[in-house]
Amino acid sequence: MSSNAPRHIRLTSHPEPQAHRWPLRWGAAGPAERGPVIGSVTRPSDRNVIGTHGGSYSLYRALAVSAGALSPLQRPDLANTHPVTEIGPYPQWTEPGKIVSLDPWGHVTGEAFGQAIGEGIDIRPTIAITRARLNMAELNALVGQGELAPDGQVLHGNGDVSVTKAAIDPVWWLPGIAERFGVAEHDLRRTLFEQTGGMYPELVTRPDLSVFLPPIGGITAYIFGDPRALADRHTRLACRVHDECNGSDVFGSDICTCRPYLIQGIEEGIRAAQGGGVGLVVYNRKEGRALGEVTKFLVYNARKRQEGGDQAATYFERTECVAGVQDARFQQLMPDVLHWLGVTRIHRLISMSNLKYDAMVEQGIEVLERVPIPPDRIPPDAAVEMEAKKAAGYFAPEAPSPADLARTVGRPLESM
Amino acid sequence: MSSNAPRHIRLTSHPEPQAHRWPLRWGAAGPAERGPVIGSVTRPSDRNVIGTHGGSYSLYRALAVSAGALSPLQRPDLANTHPVTEIGPYPQWTEPGKIVSLDPWGHVTGEAFGQAIGEGIDIRPTIAITRARLNMAELNALVGQGELAPDGQVLHGNGDVSVTKAAIDPVWWLPGIAERFGVAEHDLRRTLFEQTGGMYPELVTRPDLSVFLPPIGGITAYIFGDPRALADRHTRLACRVHDECNGSDVFGSDICTCRPYLIQGIEEGIRAAQGGGVGLVVYNRKEGRALGEVTKFLVYNARKRQEGGDQAATYFERTECVAGVQDARFQQLMPDVLHWLGVTRIHRLISMSNLKYDAMVEQGIEVLERVPIPPDRIPPDAAVEMEAKKAAGYFAPEAPSPADLARTVGRPLESM
Repeated sequence: MSSNAPRHIRLTSHPEPQAHRWPLRWGAAGPAERGPVIGSVTRPSDRNVIGTHGGSYSLYRALAVSAGALSPLQRPDLANTHPVTEIGPYPQWTEPGKIVSLDPWGHVTGEAFGQAIGEGIDIRPTIAITRARLNMAELNALVGQGELAPDGQVLHGNGDVSVTKAAIDPVWWLPGIAERFGVAEHDLRRTLFEQTGGMYPELVTRPDLSVFLPPIGGITAYIFGDPRALADRHTRLACRVHDECNGSDVFGSDICTCRPYLIQGIEEGIRAAQGGGVGLVVYNRKEGRALGEVTKFLVYNARKRQEGGDQAATYFERTECVAGVQDARFQQLMPDVLHWLGVTRIHRLISMSNLKYDAMVEQGIEVLERVPIPPDRIPPDAAVEMEAKKAAGYFAPEAPSPADLARTVGRPLESM
Repeated sequence: MSSNAPRHIRLTSHPEPQAHRWPLRWGAAGPAERGPVIGSVTRPSDRNVIGTHGGSYSLYRALAVSAGALSPLQRPDLANTHPVTEIGPYPQWTEPGKIVSLDPWGHVTGEAFGQAIGEGIDIRPTIAITRARLNMAELNALVGQGELAPDGQVLHGNGDVSVTKAAIDPVWWLPGIAERFGVAEHDLRRTLFEQTGGMYPELVTRPDLSVFLPPIGGITAYIFGDPRALADRHTRLACRVHDECNGSDVFGSDICTCRPYLIQGIEEGIRAAQGGGVGLVVYNRKEGRALGEVTKFLVYNARKRQEGGDQAATYFERTECVAGVQDARFQQLMPDVLHWLGVTRIHRLISMSNLKYDAMVEQGIEVLERVPIPPDRIPPDAAVEMEAKKAAGYFAPEAPSPADLARTVGRPLESM
């Protein structure tokens, strides 16, 4: 293993006096001027970013190399992997500060840098775009009830839904991330290094490297209808931006509204596409408000066991006690994927989150209508969350009173 | 921000001559003898591991600190967060080499180290155990068809399912990981460092620190019935070990069997618990065979576009071309969670994977029966995967012939 590595271990790198062969000019007008993101480890001298591809999965790749199952020199064969549809380029890709947490050219790597790749430079896509058919029990039920009608294009007679979907790995342009959060880049780099227990010293030793591939989960965008219509502000767009919640999204836990609201987003996306518009569901890997599932389950226990039971009135307090913060999702970076898709106006936003709405508006995306989840789709034990969020600024026809909040109490642990 | 940090940045640490106050003795008989895993960054001098808590989510915690939303000194208030049920201790917890990728004492932190926590040592749980109610459309349909009958305990009249669930963050004991993979610890550490593009130099500078909290996704275990019965080899256990597939698990993509097989695992778990046995579903965050979703979508495109179409005969080849390896899930570490739960015998394994089966048997877990997915639950476009896997050693009544493999061709991209 590690047959490509020199025997000497370099603990961190430092800026080199000579100009790098592959400079990155973030925000440049085209992929060639911008330059390729090179995060692969097969030839370290080509690298122009901190971190590596695949986020967390680089650890598994390392295990594969350790076990002798993967050659450390292996470069991908990208034949036939190119996107099934064009996305952009859009003006947002080059407007300063619009996109700072993904590479807008991440899907056209093969086409833009084909020659360099042919010469042996290990340039990898950070975005992949494919097509799929979905079949979901809840949508089939809606068809059965006559709420959704197959049209043979978006929704098929057997309940299948045709979608275009994009998987997007994070690519952080550190000066832009710092600006979005209103902090100095130097401080951001230092805090990222320290708060992760010392991950990537290059965050502090390489101020000349401005791009970081963080080992966090990415984004998947599901598009219903024509992807190019997303950028046309006169085509009706129904959009849900959804943050991962494995317990509900996959297992149907009834303590929150996540899966029901996701289904509503898909349903509205299908309906928009059927009516000549377009639908978009963005899925962000930010489990448990980006605090992780261990913290989430600790908070569930603390909520259920507190004096007076699981009350809407103390909903956020419990998370803050355990995690020190109510929410770590930082919707400030969320609109980047919308900019990438060319979105400038959302006709129907399938979300009540004021944090998401505010982040979109702040980023210049117009939102015409906000669509709440209908009360009959809120699972029994999720009323606590819903009332607490409404009181905290969630979009709703009316905010609950303090008495409503005190009255809304969830199921105790014993009767789960 | 970073108000707890000295002005001098320490790029990596090195072993110190004096004995550490919190030594870790992996495999010791009890939590006190073993010592607490201290991965928090609020007081660096107490740390006795490489990395930090929350896996990937430490990056979001860092953003929270950067943005001024979270104090870098914040310690969690763990009041009322303790597990809803006892798990263990079991003999497997102290048998050498049995558990190397999670902390078997990770859920009893509060109780085992309450005094130290009270004195201000920032010791955090790596496992949280709670109870939940699940409600899933597919299970409701099975109730409607008379395939599942509510009993009022496990499965309620309204279709709710009562479960105990545990979220588990990875805690790698590096000497044990190296042994499981048959490599020298020194080589493992170096490869982990190099293949991640230089993450955590302490992997090479701190051979005295044997525990690593890798920034990868964790595990969730869903238990149907009495969790303590998992350790009784005479109580019938139905178990599915499931690896994340967001496209199918959440969105119902029909290119694989993931969600249908997961539903079958839950259904069998409910049935086992109703019959006096116990059910277990283990969910591992290993998207796209632990290669990530970008790679997965690239492979989908390459499969669909190859000459002759998406054939079972070339199924694994396409992944290997793009990723360099067919699979990076490394089932060798998977049985750890079963050891933690005390499992020594699985009566019904709801999986056809020979890799999972082999890993369990290798680790001394007896598997009595393997339950395939019924043909009528295999989605239309998933036949390619199923036939290819059967040919590669997947458990099945009969393996497909080369002619069968060549005949099994999936839907082209144009008709998705």
